[in-house]
Amino acid sequence: MTKNRLEAFSDGVIAVIITIMVLELKAPEGAGVDALRPLAPAFLTYVLSFVFLGIYWNNHHHMLHATDRINGKVLWANLHLLFWLSLVPFVTGWMGENHFAAVPTAVYGVVLLMAAVAFTILTKLLVAEQGPGSRLAEALGPDTKSKVSLALYACAIPLAFANRWIADALYVSVALIWLVPDPRIESRLKR
Amino acid sequence: MTKNRLEAFSDGVIAVIITIMVLELKAPEGAGVDALRPLAPAFLTYVLSFVFLGIYWNNHHHMLHATDRINGKVLWANLHLLFWLSLVPFVTGWMGENHFAAVPTAVYGVVLLMAAVAFTILTKLLVAEQGPGSRLAEALGPDTKSKVSLALYACAIPLAFANRWIADALYVSVALIWLVPDPRIESRLKR
Amino acid sequence: MTKNRLEAFSDGVIAVIITIMVLELKAPEGAGVDALRPLAPAFLTYVLSFVFLGIYWNNHHHMLHATDRINGKVLWANLHLLFWLSLVPFVTGWMGENHFAAVPTAVYGVVLLMAAVAFTILTKLLVAEQGPGSRLAEALGPDTKSKVSLALYACAIPLAFANRWIADALYVSVALIWLVPDPRIESRLKR
Amino acid sequence: MTKNRLEAFSDGVIAVIITIMVLELKAPEGAGVDALRPLAPAFLTYVLSFVFLGIYWNNHHHMLHATDRINGKVLWANLHLLFWLSLVPFVTGWMGENHFAAVPTAVYGVVLLMAAVAFTILTKLLVAEQGPGSRLAEALGPDTKSKVSLALYACAIPLAFANRWIADALYVSVALIWLVPDPRIESRLKR
Repeated sequence: MTKNRLEAFSDGVIAVIITIMVLELKAPEGAGVDALRPLAPAFLTYVLSFVFLGIYWNNHHHMLHATDRINGKVLWANLHLLFWLSLVPFVTGWMGENHFAAVPTAVYGVVLLMAAVAFTILTKLLVAEQGPGSRLAEALGPDTKSKVSLALYACAIPLAFANRWIADALYVSVALIWLVPDPRIESRLKR
Repeated sequence: MTKNRLEAFSDGVIAVIITIMVLELKAPEGAGVDALRPLAPAFLTYVLSFVFLGIYWNNHHHMLHATDRINGKVLWANLHLLFWLSLVPFVTGWMGENHFAAVPTAVYGVVLLMAAVAFTILTKLLVAEQGPGSRLAEALGPDTKSKVSLALYACAIPLAFANRWIADALYVSVALIWLVPDPRIESRLKR
Repeated sequence: MTKNRLEAFSDGVIAVIITIMVLELKAPEGAGVDALRPLAPAFLTYVLSFVFLGIYWNNHHHMLHATDRINGKVLWANLHLLFWLSLVPFVTGWMGENHFAAVPTAVYGVVLLMAAVAFTILTKLLVAEQGPGSRLAEALGPDTKSKVSLALYACAIPLAFANRWIADALYVSVALIWLVPDPRIESRLKR
Repeated sequence: MTKNRLEAFSDGVIAVIITIMVLELKAPEGAGVDALRPLAPAFLTYVLSFVFLGIYWNNHHHMLHATDRINGKVLWANLHLLFWLSLVPFVTGWMGENHFAAVPTAVYGVVLLMAAVAFTILTKLLVAEQGPGSRLAEALGPDTKSKVSLALYACAIPLAFANRWIADALYVSVALIWLVPDPRIESRLKR
C-alpha cells in the first residue's frame, strides 16, 4: 500500500481547515480602524490555530517522509487525527468570539490534546509497521517534545478555570517548543 | 487513461466535503458549558457523517489501488458518487438541527443509500474495465458488506417514520460493519 | 515546464468550487417534507451546475492528458477559465433563490458562455504550443461540440428575457450534448 | 527532503483561498439588474484579489520548478506566505463592502505588502539552499519586479488616507507589472 494518497488527502483536508478558519473572521460593519479593534481576540486566536495546524502539517510531512509502508490501521489513525484537527475552526471561532473565556479556552485545549493523542497513536502505528531499527524510529528518537506537549495540554485544561491566561500561555509555549528550532532546547528536552 | 487525476480530484472533493461540514457547527452564543449542550445532536451527526466519508475515502483508495485502467464511463460514475457525497453536509446540518426528526433522518438515509448505489455502479464499471480474473475482482470477492449496507439503508428509510432511533441505529450499524475489521464478522458475512 | 502542478491546482480549485456550491443549499427551518419543497429550484440549479463543472473537469482532464508541453500563457489562460468557473456558485445561488427569474437566468448564461470562451482560448494556446499534427490537435478534431455549445449559450442569454424556460432548456441541452456519448450524435455534429 | 508535498499543500491552500473569496459575493435579494449594481465594488475587489492570488501561484510555481532542495526553514517561510495570503478573502470582503473606503484600502495594502515580504523571505531562503550560481539564482536575476512591487505597496498604504483612488491605482499597477509580459518593460525595469 502506497502512502501517496494518504499524503494527498491529508494535505487537502489540512489545507481546507487552515483556510476556512478565516471565514470566522467576519468583515466588520464600519470602515474605520475602530471597527477592527473588536476583532483582535479572534485574530490572535486565528494566528495561534494557524501555527498549530502548520506544526501538524510539518510534523506529518516529516513523519511520512521517513515512512516506507502503511496499512489499513494507519488510514484510520490518520482520519482520527484529521477529525480532531477539523474541530479547530469551531473552537477557534468560539474562543475568539468570547475573548478567551474559561470554558471555550478549556475546550480549545481539549481539542488540541485529542489531536496530540491522535498524532501519538498514528506515530506508534507507523513505527510498528516500519519495524524496530527503521529510519522512522531513529528519526523520532525519544520524541520528548510530543510528551512535553501532551503534559502541557493536560495541565492547561483545568488551569483554564483557575486563570485562563495561564492556559493560553501554555498553548503558546507548546507552539514555541515546536517553532523554535534551537538545538540546545531540543537537546535539553531530550535529556 | 491514467487514474492519477481521478484520485487527486476525488481526494480534493472528499477533503472539502469532510471539512466544510464543520461549518454547520456554529460557535454558540454563550461562553458556558450550557451553551454547548444544544450542539450535541449536531456534533453526533457530524461524527457519524465524518465516519461515513472516511469509509468512502478508504474504500475508494483501496479500490483504485487495485485498478490499472479507467475509461470515460468511470469518470462520470465517479462524479455521480461525488455528487451524492456532496449532499452529506446538507443532510447532516438538517438532521443535526432538527434533533434526528423523522423526515430529516429518512432523507439522510436516502443520500447514504444513493451514495452506496453510486459506489456499486463505480465498482461494476471498474471491474468490467479490468476484465474477469483481475486483481480488483479478486480483491472485492462477493462484496457482501456492500450488499448488506444497501439492504440496511433501504430498511432504515421507511423505519425512520415508525421509529427514528431504529433508523439511526441502522446507520451506526453500517458504519460499524466497515469500521470493525474483525475477520470473524467478515467471514460470517461472506457466508 | 511540466503540467503536473497545473493539473493539481485546477483539480483543487474545481474540487472546492463544486463542493462549496452546496453551501447555497441552506438546511430548511422546519423538519417536514414541506420544508424541502421551496428548495427544489435551488436543488435543480445545483444539479445543473454540478454537471457543468463535471463536464469542465472531464474535458480539462482529457485535454491535458493529450498535452506534452505548457507555457506561461497557458498558466494565465487556465486561471482565466478558473475565474469564470469560480463565479458558478454565485450565479447558481442567485438563479436558484429567484426560481429561474429572467435576469439571473441570463447572467447564469453569461458566466457559462465566458467559461466556454475561456476554455476555447486555453484549447487554442495548448494546440499552438504542441504544434500542428500533434496528438492533441488530432484528438480535438474540428471540435464541433464546443462551437455548438458557444452558439447555444449566445442564443440562450437574450432568449432568457423572452421566455426563461427556453434559456434553461438550452442550458440543459448543452449539458446533454457533452453527457450523452452517443457516437451517432457526435458524428452528425462533426459533419 | 522533497518539494512535492510543499507544492501540493501550497496548491491546496491557494486553491481554497482563491475560491472561498467568492463566498463574500452574496447573491443579492432582488432578481433584477438593479440588484447587481451594489455588488460592483465587491466584484471589482474580487477580480483584483483573484489576479493577485493567480500571480502568487504562478510565481510560486516557477520558483519551485527551478528548486532542487528544500529545508525546514523553507517549510515555515512557505507557511508564513500562506498565512498572509489566507487573509486576502477577509480584506477583500471588507474593502468591497465599504466601497474602497480609506482604512480598508490601506489594510488591503498591508496584507499585500506582508505577502510580498513573505515571498521575498521565501525566495532568499530557497536561493541560499540551492547555493550561488544555481539555476534558481540565475532564473531570478536582479528580481527588480519584486523590489518595485514592495516599493509601490509601501507608498500605497499611506496614500490611501490622502486619496484612496491613488492607492487602488497603485495596486492595479503592481498587478499589471506581473501580468503584462512585455519584454521591453521587463528589460527597462531590470536596468
